[in-house]
Amino acid sequence: MEDRAKRIIIVGGGFAGLQAAKSLADQDNLQITVIDRRNHHLFQPLLYQVATAGLSPAEIATPIRSVLDQYQNVNVVLDEVLDFDPVQRDVIGQAGRYPFDFLVVAAGAGHSYFGRNEWAGLAPGLKTLEQATEIRRRILLAFEKAEMESDPERQKALLTFAVVGGGPTGIEVAGAIAEISRYTLEKDFRRIDPSRTRVLLIEAGPRILASFHEELSRRAARDLEKMGVQIWTSTRVTDIGEEGVRLGAEFIQARTVIWAAGVEPSVLGKKLVERFGGELDRVGRPIVQSTLELGSETGIFVIGDLAHVLGPKGLPLPGLAPVAMQAGRHVARAIGARLVGRPLPVFSYIDKGQMATIGRKRAVMQWGDIRLGGYIAWLMWLLIHIYYLIGFKNRIFVFFEWAWSYITLRRGARLILDSHR
Amino acid sequence: MEDRAKRIIIVGGGFAGLQAAKSLADQDNLQITVIDRRNHHLFQPLLYQVATAGLSPAEIATPIRSVLDQYQNVNVVLDEVLDFDPVQRDVIGQAGRYPFDFLVVAAGAGHSYFGRNEWAGLAPGLKTLEQATEIRRRILLAFEKAEMESDPERQKALLTFAVVGGGPTGIEVAGAIAEISRYTLEKDFRRIDPSRTRVLLIEAGPRILASFHEELSRRAARDLEKMGVQIWTSTRVTDIGEEGVRLGAEFIQARTVIWAAGVEPSVLGKKLVERFGGELDRVGRPIVQSTLELGSETGIFVIGDLAHVLGPKGLPLPGLAPVAMQAGRHVARAIGARLVGRPLPVFSYIDKGQMATIGRKRAVMQWGDIRLGGYIAWLMWLLIHIYYLIGFKNRIFVFFEWAWSYITLRRGARLILDSHR
Repeated sequence: MEDRAKRIIIVGGGFAGLQAAKSLADQDNLQITVIDRRNHHLFQPLLYQVATAGLSPAEIATPIRSVLDQYQNVNVVLDEVLDFDPVQRDVIGQAGRYPFDFLVVAAGAGHSYFGRNEWAGLAPGLKTLEQATEIRRRILLAFEKAEMESDPERQKALLTFAVVGGGPTGIEVAGAIAEISRYTLEKDFRRIDPSRTRVLLIEAGPRILASFHEELSRRAARDLEKMGVQIWTSTRVTDIGEEGVRLGAEFIQARTVIWAAGVEPSVLGKKLVERFGGELDRVGRPIVQSTLELGSETGIFVIGDLAHVLGPKGLPLPGLAPVAMQAGRHVARAIGARLVGRPLPVFSYIDKGQMATIGRKRAVMQWGDIRLGGYIAWLMWLLIHIYYLIGFKNRIFVFFEWAWSYITLRRGARLILDSHR
Repeated sequence: MEDRAKRIIIVGGGFAGLQAAKSLADQDNLQITVIDRRNHHLFQPLLYQVATAGLSPAEIATPIRSVLDQYQNVNVVLDEVLDFDPVQRDVIGQAGRYPFDFLVVAAGAGHSYFGRNEWAGLAPGLKTLEQATEIRRRILLAFEKAEMESDPERQKALLTFAVVGGGPTGIEVAGAIAEISRYTLEKDFRRIDPSRTRVLLIEAGPRILASFHEELSRRAARDLEKMGVQIWTSTRVTDIGEEGVRLGAEFIQARTVIWAAGVEPSVLGKKLVERFGGELDRVGRPIVQSTLELGSETGIFVIGDLAHVLGPKGLPLPGLAPVAMQAGRHVARAIGARLVGRPLPVFSYIDKGQMATIGRKRAVMQWGDIRLGGYIAWLMWLLIHIYYLIGFKNRIFVFFEWAWSYITLRRGARLILDSHR
């Protein structure tokens, strides 16, 4: 028993899971398996660029296998995890069972429609490549249909884009649509004037970018407005239909609605708590110890967007890539400590700040008390995102792609693909 | 009979009427009477500045009497003209009758609600000082009420301003409200964020500033957007209520609606045609000869916004101050010619171009093939408007008022007055 390699199962190939795998790799006597239902790691912070035809799907996705192929003791399995067996200590996948000594669950989060799941088809979210290309298809098709439409009322509805949710994803999408319509497509159409597109950014709270300092949220609002985004705060979506969105008493005709509002953690969080005990928070994330372990000495860790980790200010840590990656590294240390019988270290997040991009030359970022906006913030955003894009090949490609579209104002990935490619 | 001074009645103390009076004055053997129902000449191009608290009413209004007091043979009468007596050749006023040899009707135009006159109370137009101060009152009160309102939905409705009509007046008002809310009031309120005000500019046609070159209308749209104005073209107002505006299928909550859409000529145009013959155009303006005379040798002239004068391109001349002033001068020449038995000269409008201001540093102007936007256009707009403001005292005051508000970003006339003062 002592000599058998410890089996570590990592569920999810996002920032958290991949970082955990890398940090655990090459240690003696460990057998690591990464299970994901997709074969690729997705660089989610740039997903909006795919949705808005700035980048191609391949440019922000890397096969998980190739990210990890240098590590001899890491396996990659394409499977969908359905449940856990607490007696056998097995992960139950669709294709098979995976026994574990240690379990790291980093299954992430999708979109929450606040109980109105029928809106999902009408207003796709932006969490997967499929959703991103679907949004891209809808945006570009809307302009094409508007070009063929002679009725001004219907044309207006086609040229109205409602983005629901004023967080980083919402402002990135809204900014990009405004940019496309104002600059990229301006000369492409004869009968419509794409620059008369209505891009509505709808936020239920009193301000956009609520997780940022008020000054930056104001700055971002001004910058978005300058690009033609129409920002409606304190505005709650009460219904979405084929024709448009209902906002309490108000109604707006919009043929393209994009959902960037609620976050819903993977259902595996609930399964985990059902099988191994523990508690879920209000949105459904398992609440972990300060060591990131679920319960006491379970050998089960939850990290990334799926985990509820209490931060220094008594608030859960946000669902950001730096949090996920630091947690991945921490888990490796924690498992190492447990293996030699030492107490687990406490996870302490080193704030790497947060940022959101608004358009071709504008972004906002904050890091502790440092707050930046405008061009400098955008440059930093660009460098950081290019740097972190996993995989050297991609990094170079993305850089050239951006340099090109920056100079020419064109968007290279203006493809309308039928079956989500 | 030969020796009796010819009696000239001028109805209306606007740009056209005043210019006619001045050009006729000091000629021998003429007795000139200017009748207006108001005692003041109004510099209408700056009326939006009163509506948006930039200038005080007195700064853009001058007593007609003081404009004309240097002319010995000009009388000023405060009376409302109701009708005309074609037999006696009398102007019929509320206070009395005014016999004339020559009649110059320059009674101007008000707003047309396209047959929905019940909208007038809900959405005041911007043609008189009373309307301007009423709009100012509503705008400033809306912010005050929003500050006291705790319900975010009602607060949003209070902070939504819908400006109907994308002509020069509409864009000037919308731009000024955006400017006020974004810059002037920003620090005045505690509980509301005036910079989150929605300013909607609603235009039924496919573009704003339809009388301008397409390039300028696009430029203006971009500049307005940069200031936070949300421009909705191809959007027709189908109903206005206490709660907001209905736009076909769409509905927007807006407690302040400002009407800058249709133009309706004074009813005196119709009276004139009924009494003396002639024809009205589609909107109700008498169609005059190329000499500006109504019919043949009637001695009756119609000028200013009330007149339908065919321009060089087969279109009626626009309702602009330069047209009115040139027509006023022409009428003096025409009456002079008739008095000595010569044929009347033909009116030919010398294009002085047109301009519209968008904000504190931006305007658009076109003059023949010359098209300007941005800061230069705004400076020219400023100089021309200050120069033409009638009355030396006012000119200096307005200049200082503007210099002050330009430097301080404050608006001096932020008064909420109850009884339209």
